[in-house]
Amino acid sequence: MKIAVLPGDGIGPEVVREALRVLDALNLPGLVLFEGDVGAIAYQRHGHPLPQETLDMARAADAVLFGAVGDPSCDNLERHLRPEQAILGLRAELGLFANLRPATTFTGLEHMSGLRPEIAREIDLLIVRELNGDVYFGDKGIRTRDDGEREGWDMMCYSESEVRRIAHVAFRAARKRGGRLTSVDKANVLETSQVWRDTVIEVGKEYPDVALEHMYVDNAAMQLVKSPGQFDTVVTGNLFGDILSDQASMCVGSIGLLPSASLGERQTEYGAFGLYEPIHGSAPDIAGQGKANPMATILSLAMLLRHSMGREEDAVRVERAVAECLADGVRGGDLGGRATSREIGDSVVSKLL
Amino acid sequence: MKIAVLPGDGIGPEVVREALRVLDALNLPGLVLFEGDVGAIAYQRHGHPLPQETLDMARAADAVLFGAVGDPSCDNLERHLRPEQAILGLRAELGLFANLRPATTFTGLEHMSGLRPEIAREIDLLIVRELNGDVYFGDKGIRTRDDGEREGWDMMCYSESEVRRIAHVAFRAARKRGGRLTSVDKANVLETSQVWRDTVIEVGKEYPDVALEHMYVDNAAMQLVKSPGQFDTVVTGNLFGDILSDQASMCVGSIGLLPSASLGERQTEYGAFGLYEPIHGSAPDIAGQGKANPMATILSLAMLLRHSMGREEDAVRVERAVAECLADGVRGGDLGGRATSREIGDSVVSKLL
Ligand SMILES: CC(C)[C@H](C(=O)O)[C@@H](O)C(=O)O
Ligand SMILES: CC(C)[C@H](C(=O)O)[C@@H](O)C(=O)O
Repeated sequence: MKIAVLPGDGIGPEVVREALRVLDALNLPGLVLFEGDVGAIAYQRHGHPLPQETLDMARAADAVLFGAVGDPSCDNLERHLRPEQAILGLRAELGLFANLRPATTFTGLEHMSGLRPEIAREIDLLIVRELNGDVYFGDKGIRTRDDGEREGWDMMCYSESEVRRIAHVAFRAARKRGGRLTSVDKANVLETSQVWRDTVIEVGKEYPDVALEHMYVDNAAMQLVKSPGQFDTVVTGNLFGDILSDQASMCVGSIGLLPSASLGERQTEYGAFGLYEPIHGSAPDIAGQGKANPMATILSLAMLLRHSMGREEDAVRVERAVAECLADGVRGGDLGGRATSREIGDSVVSKLL
Repeated sequence: MKIAVLPGDGIGPEVVREALRVLDALNLPGLVLFEGDVGAIAYQRHGHPLPQETLDMARAADAVLFGAVGDPSCDNLERHLRPEQAILGLRAELGLFANLRPATTFTGLEHMSGLRPEIAREIDLLIVRELNGDVYFGDKGIRTRDDGEREGWDMMCYSESEVRRIAHVAFRAARKRGGRLTSVDKANVLETSQVWRDTVIEVGKEYPDVALEHMYVDNAAMQLVKSPGQFDTVVTGNLFGDILSDQASMCVGSIGLLPSASLGERQTEYGAFGLYEPIHGSAPDIAGQGKANPMATILSLAMLLRHSMGREEDAVRVERAVAECLADGVRGGDLGGRATSREIGDSVVSKLL
C-alpha cells in the first residue's frame, strides 16, 4: 500500500508530521510512504505549484495525504502558478469528483461555535460536494469587447452523468447515515441546477429508502444558521459546496478539527483511491511555530484508513483517540488552549498504544 | 409622487396593507398610489407573473412597494411563468442593479438569532448586492449533446462598467456608514471575480477615505458566523449576494424584520427610482391568517421614504417607531409572540401620531 504525502506550505508540514506519527503508532504492515512538493514550496523549488513529478507520485499511489497550500509570497503570480492551482489540478487530474466533508460538533466544544450551544450541539452532517465540474472547471476567460471594456466570464455547467455519479455517492452515504439527503441548488434561476435537480430525482428512484428533499442555496445558508441539526447528508455542486461546507465548519466551531476526503472512481486493491486533507488552509501567520492543531489532519488520516485502506476499525480507533483527547481537555490554540502540535500528536498517539 | 403597490402572493397583501397604513399615518401631501398584480395571482388573472400592465405601471411610478411572490400551485409551471420570474423581470426591466440589504440586530432580540447573543449583538452591516448581472442574467440553457446526454449551462459574467456602477454605490454607502468596505468574490477560481476585483480596486482609488478589503466568498460565509461584527459594508455579485444576505438575515434572527431596497440609475424629481420589498417570501403556510409580521415591509417603506422620496426624517421616524414597538415587547409569531399583522400595524401607527 503506497501513500503519497504532500505536506505543502505554511502549517502543512507541521500537521502532516503529527498525522504520520499517528499512522506510525498503528503499526500497519506493508506501508510505503513517498513525499512530494506541492504549492508555493513546489513553485520555489521547481517553478510550478504542481510539478509533474508530484502528480506522477500521486497517481502511482493508493492514497494521498495532503497538508495545505498557499503563501502570501505568491499573491502576485499569474493565476496558473498560484499554490491553490495545485489542489485544483490534483482534483482534476486524479478525477477526484466526490468531496466528503463531515461536520460534527464534539461534545464539550459547543461553546466554540458561533452558534448558540443548544443549536451547535445538534450538528451532525455530511456535505457531499461535487469536485470536478461546475463553474470551477468550465471554459473561462477575460475578453476585451469592441467598445474596449474588459469582461470576465466563466461557464457554469453540469451534465447528467456528472450529477449521476455524485448523486450515487451521496445516496449511498445517506443510507449509511440517517437516511435523509438534502440536495442544494438554485433551480429557480439556473439551468445547470435544473439538470442537477432532475438527475438527482431520477437517481433517487434507486434509493427509495432515502428521503430526498431539495433546497435552494440561499435557504440552505439560512437553515445552516437557524437549525443545522435538521441536516443529515447534503449533496451539492462545486461552488455551493465550497461556500456551504466552510459555513458549516464554522458552525461546528474550529476549522482546526474538520477533515475531508476527495474520492474518484478508481478502486485499488485496498479500497477507493482518494486524497485526504484538513479543510483549514496553510495559515502562514502561525506557520513554523509548532502550534497548529493537527487534529483535522489526523482525522483526515482516519478517513484515509476508512476509505482507501478498508480499515474501518483503525479509522474508528483514531477518531475515538481524538475525541478522548478533546474530552481530556487537550486544546490547541484554535480552541483557546496552549497545546503544541507535538503535544497534541503525543496525546493522540498515547491513546492508541 | 406616484407609488406602484404590488402586494403579490401569500402574505404579501397582508404585510403591504399594514405598511400602507403606516404611510397613511405620515400624512404626506401629493401621494398617488396605484395597485397592480404580480406573481402567481397575476398568472392566474392574466396568464403571466409580470403582466405588461404591471410593468408599465411600475415604470411610470417614482417608486415601487413590493410584497412577495410565490405559490406552490405554480411549482410545475414552465420556468418563465413561475412567480419568481416576476421579481427577476422587474429587476431587469427597471434596471434595478443595486440591492441594499441592511442587517442589524435589534436590541432585545439577540436571543432570536442562531448565533450566540454576544456575537449577534454586534451585527450592523449593509450588503450591497449587484442585481442585474452575473450568472442570473447571462445566456443559459439545456442542450442535448451528441452522445444523448443533457447538459445544463449558465454563463457567469461581469463587465467593468457593471462592476464600476455597483462599486460606486457601495463606496458611497460605506462612506456614510463606518468607512469600511469588504468586497466578496472568488478570484482564486473565477475570471469573473478577477475583473470584479480589479475594477473594485480601481474604483476604490476615488474613495481613499474608505478602507477596502477583499474576501473569498467561502471565507465570508465563515466569518459571517464567526464574527459578523467585523463587517461594515459588503459589496458582492448577484449570486454570492443572494446567499450571503440570506445567511446574514438569519444571523440577525428573524427574516420578518429585514427590509431591502433595489435602486437603478434613474433619478426622479424626488430621489432615486427604486423597488422596496421585505426579504422574506410569500410564506404560503401562514397566508391569509393575518399573522404575518409586517415589520420588514414597514422598514422597506422607510427605505422608500429615504431613497425615493428624500424624506430622511420620516424614514427615521418609521424606523424608530418599529424599534420602539419591539422594545415594548410587540412580537409577531416569527419572534415567538402572538401579535397579529393588524396589531403590529396599529402599534407602529400609534407611535407616529
Ligand atoms: C483553494 C480553493 C481553490 C479551494 C476551493 O475553492 O475549492 C478551497 O476553498 C477548498 O474548498 O478546498
Ligand atoms: C426568488 C429568487 C429568484 C430571488 C433571487 O435569487 O434573487 C430571491 O432569492 C431574492 O434574493 O430576492
